[in-house]
Amino acid sequence: MTNLDINEIYNAQKVLSGVLRKTPLVWSRRINPDANIYIKPENMQYTGSFKLRGAYYKISQLTDEEKSRGVIACSAGNHAQGVAFGASHNGIKALICLPAGAPISKVEATKGYGAEVCLVPGVYDDAYQKALQLRDEKGYTFVHPFDDPKVIAGQGTIGLEILEDMPDVEAVIVPIGGGGLISGVAFAIKTLRPEIKVYGVQSSGAPSMATSLQEGKIQHLSTVSTIADGIAVKEPGINTFEMCNKYVDEVVTVSDDEIAAAILALLEQHKIVAEGAGAVSIAAAMFNKLPIKGKRVVCLVSGGNIDVTTLSRVITRGLSKSGRNYTFKIDLYDKPGQLSGVCNIIADLGGNILSVSHERINASAEINGCILRIELETLNNEHINTIRTGLTNSGYCVLN
Amino acid sequence: MTNLDINEIYNAQKVLSGVLRKTPLVWSRRINPDANIYIKPENMQYTGSFKLRGAYYKISQLTDEEKSRGVIACSAGNHAQGVAFGASHNGIKALICLPAGAPISKVEATKGYGAEVCLVPGVYDDAYQKALQLRDEKGYTFVHPFDDPKVIAGQGTIGLEILEDMPDVEAVIVPIGGGGLISGVAFAIKTLRPEIKVYGVQSSGAPSMATSLQEGKIQHLSTVSTIADGIAVKEPGINTFEMCNKYVDEVVTVSDDEIAAAILALLEQHKIVAEGAGAVSIAAAMFNKLPIKGKRVVCLVSGGNIDVTTLSRVITRGLSKSGRNYTFKIDLYDKPGQLSGVCNIIADLGGNILSVSHERINASAEINGCILRIELETLNNEHINTIRTGLTNSGYCVLN
Repeated sequence: MTNLDINEIYNAQKVLSGVLRKTPLVWSRRINPDANIYIKPENMQYTGSFKLRGAYYKISQLTDEEKSRGVIACSAGNHAQGVAFGASHNGIKALICLPAGAPISKVEATKGYGAEVCLVPGVYDDAYQKALQLRDEKGYTFVHPFDDPKVIAGQGTIGLEILEDMPDVEAVIVPIGGGGLISGVAFAIKTLRPEIKVYGVQSSGAPSMATSLQEGKIQHLSTVSTIADGIAVKEPGINTFEMCNKYVDEVVTVSDDEIAAAILALLEQHKIVAEGAGAVSIAAAMFNKLPIKGKRVVCLVSGGNIDVTTLSRVITRGLSKSGRNYTFKIDLYDKPGQLSGVCNIIADLGGNILSVSHERINASAEINGCILRIELETLNNEHINTIRTGLTNSGYCVLN
Repeated sequence: MTNLDINEIYNAQKVLSGVLRKTPLVWSRRINPDANIYIKPENMQYTGSFKLRGAYYKISQLTDEEKSRGVIACSAGNHAQGVAFGASHNGIKALICLPAGAPISKVEATKGYGAEVCLVPGVYDDAYQKALQLRDEKGYTFVHPFDDPKVIAGQGTIGLEILEDMPDVEAVIVPIGGGGLISGVAFAIKTLRPEIKVYGVQSSGAPSMATSLQEGKIQHLSTVSTIADGIAVKEPGINTFEMCNKYVDEVVTVSDDEIAAAILALLEQHKIVAEGAGAVSIAAAMFNKLPIKGKRVVCLVSGGNIDVTTLSRVITRGLSKSGRNYTFKIDLYDKPGQLSGVCNIIADLGGNILSVSHERINASAEINGCILRIELETLNNEHINTIRTGLTNSGYCVLN
């Protein structure tokens, strides 16, 4: 394991001062009313995530000779933009290898921060191999997304900022992908203030660090699947695994539905955009995954680079998960007055009808019946149940 | 016209200190690269808009006797939440009249800040009449959303904050609905620093202040229609019209498509959620409606309370307006290989296919033809034209 020194984190903070956007701590009234929650919105950092901290610091510490050759990285996401930003602000060349199928928006964002882009046919692993090959051929320095002491030290500056801005913080909740962010934050906090809890959160669709910590050694997941693509990592790093093992109090997981609900809560209550990976800390607080009752807690929202079309789908899913939208399917006898009967019951119970469709050709319906799909805006899951009961008690056949 | 005194704005600032969330100035690299743009994100203010400034200050200045009777307001939006917040933090009763058809989310938000809600059958004007009637019957103080000197003074605190945080600002761009916000901001700035420009922006679907200023007297619009519902006001106030006439340098309008593009830019580039009314200042800067080239400019983003389902639709519209999404309609001769030919051309030109549909039953198509709808992710409008030309040059009949 790397021997990180707290002075390295202080040095990173010095190097990064004037480069970063200072992100505030934002109090939240509603994320978890039983705790005193503050959000650290690193989604509003330059490049839309914390990643530029580690990348910038790593690049700043290269020798002049290494700087003159430039850096290379492999990423379709936040790390790419962090490295591009770090390199251009240090005045050196950066080459980013991306799989050829990467979204146009990501490719453009990476170019926009001043990096050259190398599109590699195939998937992420092909792009990664190409990056290593180019490193060997051209002498570029490879900037690892998480398993590098300098990168970890850069991310650790967030820990220092939290302690400065809120000395009486009692717990910090941090997203985990490869583990670079939490390694730096936990190292800084536990070195200076060991009594403060540091919790990690992964997606239940990519629980590589959680599983590795449980098993006591690094586990490789064969597949990962989650809307939190920024933390869909199959295997933690050697350094980050050891550091999490030593410094992190507990790692929990959250489901995609919980992540979607957290993204939606941040949108509606705080008017900020989080990506899935960025919102897992909020999801853990919202859905009571951790012992934070009555505590002063900082939830680190690590990034906001979510594709806007994905955001649209997440909104729909989050509304549904929180019981704010529901489509009843009702098997209707096809005669006049049926729809108006249904509508009256729903209106009396306070549901707001958004759309209605009739299906008359359906194998499951009676020959003179039809299926009514009626989409409602509702208050919560309890409200949905009240409306369902109201319809059933009036003799309507509700199918869901 | 009301005789507002700059000391009243300073007094409002003192009263509001400790109540407000301090909103920063956020530098923007890309909103308008020819100017030096800073965003003042009042969408991140408590209640999701600037409105609590004026409402809180107004309520704080009532006599004890007035306070004991409580306040009443009529609003389905940000003003309702501002009054609810201001009243509950001053420990007094607030009653908000809303039209009965108001979205559940708005009603719940208003209740959530501690106000009582009175749902009035009919439209906004019915709720307004009901509020006046209850004021007369019960002795409540009516809190006007914009045409009140105390409310204007509260909004003016934003002007003081801008001058404190950026003394070398050269222009400030402010959304206009009824005109309360810009009246306060322009009064504060022009009183202290008359050389700084203050510009107003309205939606072209609700240009009541712009039209009134042009005509030299208050004009009443018979209808308004815009996605910026927070500034869809038919008629400016008596005070606000006079103050805009005196203190505002220029008022311009932006279209709904421009507003959607601005909302999308704030989402993607700054990870913040603006409502239509909040984003008109950004739209004016993005689409070069004002003489700001080379200037240090603050764009006030006044609110973020957009319905999330509306936000989904705005994303779609914004993507389309900025040329990032396009659906080609192609009249195909229905034989093998046609779709693959189209796909090859699109792939060669860098378009990313999102969805494809064939329509075989269509009056406009040949009997053995079909209409192909192919939805693409594209870079910009120029890219769309390149792909269109590529398809046409290869003999495909592109219908749009």
